[in-house]
Amino acid sequence: MANDTDAFTGVLGRIPLLEPSPEVDGGLFPAKAFAGEVVPFEITAFREGHDLIGVDLLLRSPTGEETAHRMHPLGLERPDRWGTLALLEAEGEWRFRMQAWADEWATWKAVADKKIPVGVDVSVIFQEGAIIAERGAADSRRPKAERRVLSDLAGMLREEAAPPEARMAAASEPRVAQIMTERPVVSLQTLSHTRRIVVERTRAGVGAWYEFFPRSIGAKRRADGSWESGTFRTAALRLPEVAAMGFDVVYLPPIHPIGSSYRKGPNNALTAGPNDPGSPWAIGSADGGHDAIHPDLGTVEDFRNFLGKAELSGLEVALDLALQASPDHPWVTSHPEWFTTLPDGTIAYAENPPKKYQDIYPLNFDNDYDGLRAEIRRIVEYWIGLGIRIFRVDNPHTKPLQFWEWLIHDVNAQHPEVVFLAEAFSRPAVMQTLAKAGFQQSYSYFTWRNTKTELEEFLTTISQDWAPFYRANLFVNTPDILTEYLQFGGRPAFKIRAAIAATAGPLWGVYSGYELYESVARPGAEEYIDNEKYEYKPRDFARAAASGDSLAPYLTMLNQARNAHPALRQLRNLTLHGSEDDAVLVYSKHLDGRFSRSGKSDAVIVVANVDPHSVRETIVHLDVTALGLEPGAEFEVRDLVTGQRWNWSARNYVRLDSFYEPVHILHVKEPS
Amino acid sequence: MANDTDAFTGVLGRIPLLEPSPEVDGGLFPAKAFAGEVVPFEITAFREGHDLIGVDLLLRSPTGEETAHRMHPLGLERPDRWGTLALLEAEGEWRFRMQAWADEWATWKAVADKKIPVGVDVSVIFQEGAIIAERGAADSRRPKAERRVLSDLAGMLREEAAPPEARMAAASEPRVAQIMTERPVVSLQTLSHTRRIVVERTRAGVGAWYEFFPRSIGAKRRADGSWESGTFRTAALRLPEVAAMGFDVVYLPPIHPIGSSYRKGPNNALTAGPNDPGSPWAIGSADGGHDAIHPDLGTVEDFRNFLGKAELSGLEVALDLALQASPDHPWVTSHPEWFTTLPDGTIAYAENPPKKYQDIYPLNFDNDYDGLRAEIRRIVEYWIGLGIRIFRVDNPHTKPLQFWEWLIHDVNAQHPEVVFLAEAFSRPAVMQTLAKAGFQQSYSYFTWRNTKTELEEFLTTISQDWAPFYRANLFVNTPDILTEYLQFGGRPAFKIRAAIAATAGPLWGVYSGYELYESVARPGAEEYIDNEKYEYKPRDFARAAASGDSLAPYLTMLNQARNAHPALRQLRNLTLHGSEDDAVLVYSKHLDGRFSRSGKSDAVIVVANVDPHSVRETIVHLDVTALGLEPGAEFEVRDLVTGQRWNWSARNYVRLDSFYEPVHILHVKEPS
Repeated sequence: MANDTDAFTGVLGRIPLLEPSPEVDGGLFPAKAFAGEVVPFEITAFREGHDLIGVDLLLRSPTGEETAHRMHPLGLERPDRWGTLALLEAEGEWRFRMQAWADEWATWKAVADKKIPVGVDVSVIFQEGAIIAERGAADSRRPKAERRVLSDLAGMLREEAAPPEARMAAASEPRVAQIMTERPVVSLQTLSHTRRIVVERTRAGVGAWYEFFPRSIGAKRRADGSWESGTFRTAALRLPEVAAMGFDVVYLPPIHPIGSSYRKGPNNALTAGPNDPGSPWAIGSADGGHDAIHPDLGTVEDFRNFLGKAELSGLEVALDLALQASPDHPWVTSHPEWFTTLPDGTIAYAENPPKKYQDIYPLNFDNDYDGLRAEIRRIVEYWIGLGIRIFRVDNPHTKPLQFWEWLIHDVNAQHPEVVFLAEAFSRPAVMQTLAKAGFQQSYSYFTWRNTKTELEEFLTTISQDWAPFYRANLFVNTPDILTEYLQFGGRPAFKIRAAIAATAGPLWGVYSGYELYESVARPGAEEYIDNEKYEYKPRDFARAAASGDSLAPYLTMLNQARNAHPALRQLRNLTLHGSEDDAVLVYSKHLDGRFSRSGKSDAVIVVANVDPHSVRETIVHLDVTALGLEPGAEFEVRDLVTGQRWNWSARNYVRLDSFYEPVHILHVKEPS
Repeated sequence: MANDTDAFTGVLGRIPLLEPSPEVDGGLFPAKAFAGEVVPFEITAFREGHDLIGVDLLLRSPTGEETAHRMHPLGLERPDRWGTLALLEAEGEWRFRMQAWADEWATWKAVADKKIPVGVDVSVIFQEGAIIAERGAADSRRPKAERRVLSDLAGMLREEAAPPEARMAAASEPRVAQIMTERPVVSLQTLSHTRRIVVERTRAGVGAWYEFFPRSIGAKRRADGSWESGTFRTAALRLPEVAAMGFDVVYLPPIHPIGSSYRKGPNNALTAGPNDPGSPWAIGSADGGHDAIHPDLGTVEDFRNFLGKAELSGLEVALDLALQASPDHPWVTSHPEWFTTLPDGTIAYAENPPKKYQDIYPLNFDNDYDGLRAEIRRIVEYWIGLGIRIFRVDNPHTKPLQFWEWLIHDVNAQHPEVVFLAEAFSRPAVMQTLAKAGFQQSYSYFTWRNTKTELEEFLTTISQDWAPFYRANLFVNTPDILTEYLQFGGRPAFKIRAAIAATAGPLWGVYSGYELYESVARPGAEEYIDNEKYEYKPRDFARAAASGDSLAPYLTMLNQARNAHPALRQLRNLTLHGSEDDAVLVYSKHLDGRFSRSGKSDAVIVVANVDPHSVRETIVHLDVTALGLEPGAEFEVRDLVTGQRWNWSARNYVRLDSFYEPVHILHVKEPS
């Protein structure tokens, strides 16, 4: 955008191009997308006076191929803002910039349309038009047929003897409009700054997660009260069931040896009994640390076998990366400098005064940063070597963010397919910055956004404001989170939350037991009673299924809907719609046919009664253009939950009975 | 912010520092301030975990002197955001960055305050505190007395025999707190990116403008209907009166020769009579162009004399820079390439089809950009040579923005004191980008923001959102703008608009005749009837004053209030307050004593009934902390309009009678 006639280099080009989007912190960080994502690109562009301009998005793929995508004005409410959607498929770092240009023909046509009919400046106007047409015809890069059309047009425009109506008719031919739109006659071309957008693999942005504790699967209590732990071998038996529910990723809490010092007992008791297995997050014992497997779960070979079984079921396995140690971790003796040694010579345990967590030693990154990060890098590489490509990172916001920026960059430089999920529940700036630093996915406050208003704000944030850098994985529960909404909302609450999580964003997650409607909390806590973190918890899924007490069929339906509807596997295509009830949330997701593999457009409307205790009747008001339909369109919708069909339009009556089906998930059948 | 242990350079430092403010387009353009402006600086800063940090603003003046300003958390509603105010005095380009650091003592103190009272880890906690105090005491840059305090503190903390209460009391001494706040014991220092902020002279951001047509002042109609034009000599007689009203800047419409081809007659008539002087914006005749003076006004010597008289009255003169030509401009023959020549050989006149403006030829910057801009630069330099330091630029949005960026940069490089005011009424992106390109001041949509809601939104935009780059000059009228509010609001409307313009922002302006309540529009237009643009318009200010029909005393009072109250000469210190009436607008401006020349704080509350047709009684709700007062404070206010005094607090009754005085301008007397 340099000014080429003087030493002074301004910021502005001949046509101002400012505030490109997606952009993160003015370009300081690259924006993010996933392979197959449809990304909205925008820029502010205008020129002085009244002449018309056009704007192209110039996208450069990781292999250097540049494609141009015509941008369009975003409407009167956003003057001078131009936008287009583009499908990014290749993984790697893309670059984009915009090019604006004076649109000679469109400018001429707008003037001619005003002047010719009233007989003003007829001769000179047609001469001006002819000059533009001739410029187009002279462009040797155009197809011959096109050049002939433009040449004929110029001739007609110069035909002083012909009536103005006829000459104007020639200028208004659809073929001319098409040529002048597709390959306009331009001047004053101006380029914007270049911005980066990193496209990660699809699983970085799309996936249904299922979390379980392998030690619980197949665990058996012996007659003496002691336990026989579940193992990778027994846990593998659960994998086909998880796959059958349609999940993509199985996430395992830490699988490493567990310390015995200050081991926590049931319900977070300060002392453990001889039969208590301890929290998997108290990592490290004489059996090893972060690069070891808990002997109760099996051997490395057993783990490989488990991974193989997962792969056969079409499941990826995500491991936990919890950078902390039990007092029994080998590091404590081999590398005390990786912890904080107090003046009395002891190593500092974790605490949030006056609370103490003596079973956990936090790491100190400021004594031997190089040594510690090399060790962590080695550990991550070890699990990558075994086939792990996804890490769920425990409490990343308690470690230096600079460390994560380095680690993720370093791992991805060698293994671009590796995905890190940030388990941070913190202040917005912290959560945003972790994502900017590189985390491909993040936990979010979804679990605590339960009212219609809260959800509308939350969904706008994740699908629009934060979308360039932050991808929320909408877990409905975790071993740490059993919200009051689930505790007291009854079974409808479980359906509502799962339906929204599975359809509002492309990433969602469930922690085992959700399908059994587990809802009893430890008194005074938003956490499960008899928490699996401290106990074995075998579950009888089959019995629940047989008695009709399982949500598994509903979860399966949700994942099937996600698989069948590409619109549900996009992040930024969410539109909120209105309803006249303060508990009825309405949103839609739409994917234009030009971006879908089938070539068919896909639109899904979700109408959710977020009050699990009631029946609601209301009117839903749709912006049908957000579904890819014409204003005023009437169309058929089919409920993916019940199979019911209705004829819908912009205004629709709904009745949602939480005790029957609290949520409609409506596929829009395109009017023929 | 480089990571010094590896080749990879991340964006994040040890302590993340992001989104510094003021920042324009991610630092692409420098931010703006004026000499004497108090500027809010902000940044997002936090660290992992719970340890406490501190943040300093490091300001580097144009001469390279760096000062540190402690920043403070901006409260729970803006977590992790830090801010401080700084007074910028020296003109030139400042740089700023922020430095964050771990606050060792504050972190220790927070833990100790929790643990010591409950007897946890007493010995080790005191040892940790002693180590920090010893680090402070060992710092040779500290004053000796301070080092002794810290050394004594360390000794007391290590005094195992002393009761914990006594040791904690030593740690809580105010002197210790003061030392540890002023010169904290720090680690993990991290610097942010550097940003620029250009400080322009005070008049770039503060001033009361008065616009008049010199040809009207002293103009006389002869018996034959012809006119004797006013001249610079007769117009100079008006200068002391303008100065007496308290204005700072006199702005003159173009003073150049006026074309006769297609000259406009009264009320924009297509043809002019022999006695019609023509629009000053139809620049250029056989007598010269943009570097000439209209012979009717006098000679260059007369103009110099006028400038001298203005200076004697303490007034600066702003000239109009209207880059367009009448068909009689010398450029039309000497440089036809600076215009657009049509295929029929004629030069294109201005038009907005089907409207034609045949008296005006717009410039074309794309034929001979270098030549044209050199000529414009020459002209600007010519007027600078005569003593002009302010240019009001006519319709800058019809010329390439790139040109303005170059021109303003080039002029300011040689003459940093020169100020350009953009007369652009266009879309937000256009107006914003002109300001970013360099315009020191801008016209705004103030004239059309009349309701309480509109004004609240407008004032927030100019005092906060756009303040880093855009300075609105709040003209209440112009020769082109006589709003319906003034046409139909009666005399109260004139008071209301002037009072708000003069007090809400540091820049405001009045076009001559406002003080005479001129309010009759040309039918169907928002413009004066018998517009001075096309006619001589001598006015009898003295008679109006004598009969009590002049607003001049009110305008004088407003400018006196501005001169007496430094808070009114700031841009970013505006706070909106509430009232229970939808026509009663309330705002305050506050300047802390540490930033004022007198050392005294200054606070002014404006309460305006924006309905010129009514009496309103309501309750005003103040956030008294925005006035620099303690919550719950009671204080005396004095109305600068009437001299009345009241005792006010957070909740106050007001009665505003538009037919008497529609606006309170209340000076807050600080409680003793």
